[in-house]
Amino acid sequence: MTNVAVFGAGRIGRIHASNIAALPGVKLKYVSDPVPTYAAELAGQLGAEVASIEAALADKSVDVVAICSSTDTHSDLITRAAAAGKHIFCEKPVDLSVPRAEACAQAVKDANVACMIGFQRRFDPTFNDASRRLAAGDIGNPEMLIITSRDPGAPPAEYIKASGGIFRDMLIHDFDVFRWILCADGDEAEWLSATGSVLTDPAITATGDVDSTAVTIRTRKGRLCQINTSRRAAYGYDQRFEVMGSLGLLQCGNHTPTEVVQWNANGIHADKPEAFFLQRYAAAYRLEIAHFFETLQSGGVFKSTVADGVAAQKLADAAAASWKSGQAVTF
Amino acid sequence: MTNVAVFGAGRIGRIHASNIAALPGVKLKYVSDPVPTYAAELAGQLGAEVASIEAALADKSVDVVAICSSTDTHSDLITRAAAAGKHIFCEKPVDLSVPRAEACAQAVKDANVACMIGFQRRFDPTFNDASRRLAAGDIGNPEMLIITSRDPGAPPAEYIKASGGIFRDMLIHDFDVFRWILCADGDEAEWLSATGSVLTDPAITATGDVDSTAVTIRTRKGRLCQINTSRRAAYGYDQRFEVMGSLGLLQCGNHTPTEVVQWNANGIHADKPEAFFLQRYAAAYRLEIAHFFETLQSGGVFKSTVADGVAAQKLADAAAASWKSGQAVTF
Amino acid sequence: MTNVAVFGAGRIGRIHASNIAALPGVKLKYVSDPVPTYAAELAGQLGAEVASIEAALADKSVDVVAICSSTDTHSDLITRAAAAGKHIFCEKPVDLSVPRAEACAQAVKDANVACMIGFQRRFDPTFNDASRRLAAGDIGNPEMLIITSRDPGAPPAEYIKASGGIFRDMLIHDFDVFRWILCADGDEAEWLSATGSVLTDPAITATGDVDSTAVTIRTRKGRLCQINTSRRAAYGYDQRFEVMGSLGLLQCGNHTPTEVVQWNANGIHADKPEAFFLQRYAAAYRLEIAHFFETLQSGGVFKSTVADGVAAQKLADAAAASWKSGQAVTF
Amino acid sequence: MTNVAVFGAGRIGRIHASNIAALPGVKLKYVSDPVPTYAAELAGQLGAEVASIEAALADKSVDVVAICSSTDTHSDLITRAAAAGKHIFCEKPVDLSVPRAEACAQAVKDANVACMIGFQRRFDPTFNDASRRLAAGDIGNPEMLIITSRDPGAPPAEYIKASGGIFRDMLIHDFDVFRWILCADGDEAEWLSATGSVLTDPAITATGDVDSTAVTIRTRKGRLCQINTSRRAAYGYDQRFEVMGSLGLLQCGNHTPTEVVQWNANGIHADKPEAFFLQRYAAAYRLEIAHFFETLQSGGVFKSTVADGVAAQKLADAAAASWKSGQAVTF
Repeated sequence: MTNVAVFGAGRIGRIHASNIAALPGVKLKYVSDPVPTYAAELAGQLGAEVASIEAALADKSVDVVAICSSTDTHSDLITRAAAAGKHIFCEKPVDLSVPRAEACAQAVKDANVACMIGFQRRFDPTFNDASRRLAAGDIGNPEMLIITSRDPGAPPAEYIKASGGIFRDMLIHDFDVFRWILCADGDEAEWLSATGSVLTDPAITATGDVDSTAVTIRTRKGRLCQINTSRRAAYGYDQRFEVMGSLGLLQCGNHTPTEVVQWNANGIHADKPEAFFLQRYAAAYRLEIAHFFETLQSGGVFKSTVADGVAAQKLADAAAASWKSGQAVTF
Repeated sequence: MTNVAVFGAGRIGRIHASNIAALPGVKLKYVSDPVPTYAAELAGQLGAEVASIEAALADKSVDVVAICSSTDTHSDLITRAAAAGKHIFCEKPVDLSVPRAEACAQAVKDANVACMIGFQRRFDPTFNDASRRLAAGDIGNPEMLIITSRDPGAPPAEYIKASGGIFRDMLIHDFDVFRWILCADGDEAEWLSATGSVLTDPAITATGDVDSTAVTIRTRKGRLCQINTSRRAAYGYDQRFEVMGSLGLLQCGNHTPTEVVQWNANGIHADKPEAFFLQRYAAAYRLEIAHFFETLQSGGVFKSTVADGVAAQKLADAAAASWKSGQAVTF
Repeated sequence: MTNVAVFGAGRIGRIHASNIAALPGVKLKYVSDPVPTYAAELAGQLGAEVASIEAALADKSVDVVAICSSTDTHSDLITRAAAAGKHIFCEKPVDLSVPRAEACAQAVKDANVACMIGFQRRFDPTFNDASRRLAAGDIGNPEMLIITSRDPGAPPAEYIKASGGIFRDMLIHDFDVFRWILCADGDEAEWLSATGSVLTDPAITATGDVDSTAVTIRTRKGRLCQINTSRRAAYGYDQRFEVMGSLGLLQCGNHTPTEVVQWNANGIHADKPEAFFLQRYAAAYRLEIAHFFETLQSGGVFKSTVADGVAAQKLADAAAASWKSGQAVTF
Repeated sequence: MTNVAVFGAGRIGRIHASNIAALPGVKLKYVSDPVPTYAAELAGQLGAEVASIEAALADKSVDVVAICSSTDTHSDLITRAAAAGKHIFCEKPVDLSVPRAEACAQAVKDANVACMIGFQRRFDPTFNDASRRLAAGDIGNPEMLIITSRDPGAPPAEYIKASGGIFRDMLIHDFDVFRWILCADGDEAEWLSATGSVLTDPAITATGDVDSTAVTIRTRKGRLCQINTSRRAAYGYDQRFEVMGSLGLLQCGNHTPTEVVQWNANGIHADKPEAFFLQRYAAAYRLEIAHFFETLQSGGVFKSTVADGVAAQKLADAAAASWKSGQAVTF
């Protein structure tokens, strides 16, 4: 039996804790949260105990910690968990600062513990199947990747201020998809150009951030990637990508709540996409956690590592710099 | 805590037992099966005990039995469970004999226990949403229902012989969909015509059954329903229906494993439907069992009752008679 | 240069006359219509002359007549045109009476003229491609055919009274599709059952007809066909069929005015089908007339002959009889 | 009757000449081409005469010239036709040199003749309907435009050398779509970044051009446009765009030859897009020419003018410059 402590009982902590509790051979032992009632409620629902982070890390029976707390705590908790000899599952991002994220990678390496970063899109059944087909050569050599990534609505300005901005907070996932899909053979970003605007909510201007972005990346092998992002799509959560190769195209659509299509005098109407990430990526979160524990047991390689987290962070930094300067960045 | 005994550890028993075990407030206490190793394996996986049917029915702490054993045992087990004062979830069909199914209805009534029949299609998210929209008046008054119901491959001839034939074994679900969708306001079948052929496997001829059927039903209100069925669709499990009303059409498509669409020199290619009922109706089975326990607790009305099971059975008998005689049946 | 006289300047006559006038090597010489202004207007637009039927038939330079007049004139005009040695294109149906239709077939044969009946669905690019793929073996042996055929609205009761009823007026096309798709190898209808109701407009009851029908046909080889028809679909003109074979399914969808898909807070919205037959079958009518003249010149076999017209008429009669008696018909 | 001379009897000249010949009230009088047999063949098919450009321009009865000759002749022919007092339809582009294109605009103005530039995408039924809906406010204020524009295969290297390069030859259409869709209210490009690679054919490297491009444009109002282009898509001609607004998204898909969908053991298969521009834009070319003559008669405003041609050319120049320098361009 593998014993697990979950740090953070917010939205994402609850998802991971539930999925952990349902896995055979895994026991959710502790839940920690700065808000005691959050920790108590989640622990109660899932048959776990409330513990402080200190106590959980000090408990020798704890094998794994799952870090689901706020972004600014990630690098500290990774370092402490590694020092305590715990294996680590940590939500993205590693850290908003690349040097701190790199320090985490070193700490994990020094402690010889396993550490996986939660880029859940790599586990989405649709995206993952596209990745598998690409690797199988179904569309030949990849050439172009078009990523559409739009949220149903912006978070509060307070959140945005602390988030590191849209490139680090939201596009981090898209940069990881770029690397996962277009750089699977070791290719790398060579040139990046980013721009952005405030189009959905003037209040975002005051945060010094933008709410709509357009990024282009060219790799060393000349592959092209375009990412378009918005904080607000009127029709909901839009998560698609298309990768074109020398032999064809793989197009990954949204998931919908039902397959009902209604025909009437106004047209033919289908469901809009799932409401937000908790719905769209419900299967992905389940498969991600299962992958973590299976890989931990088998001694295999995680599908997303601290190095992946660091690499995505560097692209986010470059995009933010390109947007600010109005000029392209080369690597 | 509601204690449950599951009778039958085969394919469908395993599904229901797993879903029962995962429900909060519900405890899977016993698993019974004529094959002891089946029972032991399933019980072991889910933390339950193996028990004989007799022992499970005799245990006062057991509140609910879930009957997932072979069709020919259903009516006997319903009767015995009712006599023992247990609430009952029973897989379809109630019984291949309408009189025996009606006797079950009476036994349940006499014992004043709750009994739900497992017509899982009523819980499929897509089908269920169509039913909801129809009830909400989204397409006006229903007029026509077209049901396409095709299996990926025929069961062994041995199974077919004991199944009561395609109308009772396979179309029973389609007759229930007809009643659920087109007779929700109390309308009833008035005229039925059925025909069939052996097209997919000559071996089926020897069983005295057909593998391909076409049924038409007209209701008292003049609504029309057409059902087409095959034991073997080369492209997999095909479960769709379309209901047209005075204001529009609701079209219920298949569910697919992913939303990947591949474009190449040969065309544009999407996933075929989920492989078979365990995949297609995975969500439906989960929601069905949840509905059973929620309704049991709330004292509400089940979405599918013994009376629904009896009514579907009568339509199956009529269809089989129509097919044999070559003539329509009126009710 | 092939000289052509068009009889009938109504809706369908205008379509055919325009398509004829645009063909290279073909000259639209005369237009006839009982309403002189109709004839004059159409002839004027297309650079043709107005002539009486008698004069057109008497003109030795006329090679072809295209009969686009009302149904009750078809058999008389076919007979007269054949006697005058003209090749004939005639809109469906040959005649509402099977014996009269058969007499037309004989007259055409005796006069040794070519005669094609206008079943335009055989020329629809989508339907025609499905037929081609079926013939090419793409889905193996055909087993089941599901035809959905719904008009956007019923014609006036006056029209219905003279039309021969829904089975002869509207389903004649569906019976032809059945024969074209499911009987291409010489298979034939063996058993037919039809029913119907008045669901869309109570005024239709007074005409002695129905507005909604459901027909099932079983062939000698055991193939199954289901046809569902309505005089009124709230969402427009719905013309689809699906044919399942031993290796797969061919699904023929509607044509839409555009490929715009609109996403908003209410869902994902596509165009409804083309408004009615003039729009949906615009390409089919053009290709049909081109086929007629090409085949006339090459001496080949028409894709739809008088024999096809007679055969469809017999199925329509059988369906009407089955509906009235409430019992199946065998052939 | 409006008399027309067509200059150029190549691929696009044949399309326009046929469409002109079929218009009521319009007479195709002359066809000119440097290759006499081309001119003779086309003139013969359509009942026109062969004439030299000089003769056609000198004929007072000629009202309109349609310039369908090679790109490098456009500005000269526009200037001469304007001087001769003819109204002008000219295929895109006006000229590869912006100053020469501007000189054409001036010449047309000075001569007070009408001149329309053939950006046929503005007449594609799908694209045009999206433009109409956008103007009607169906998706609120436009924010983002994603254009996918891929050819089925590269033209010969000889052609590419003379074409002005991919940005001027191929993306000229995409730049026009950007202006048509995102700048309909007078908005303008403010910032542009372009990159590209040779991915499909190493022979293109020798021409000094690229075969795959990614362009981003930001407008004065902050709207974002991303264009991705390839000279070769293995699955055919791919012409789509999506425009997102504050209230929703308009997605313009490809047109396909048929609506047949084939299901088999490998999946669900639909047609790939129309083969190339002659097929995809067949309706657009027909509607474009009809619009030209209708507008000429009504005295209205063309949907695409010389000014539009000049503006698209400027964006193409900017994109080529950005690609070469690796840096963004501001306007």
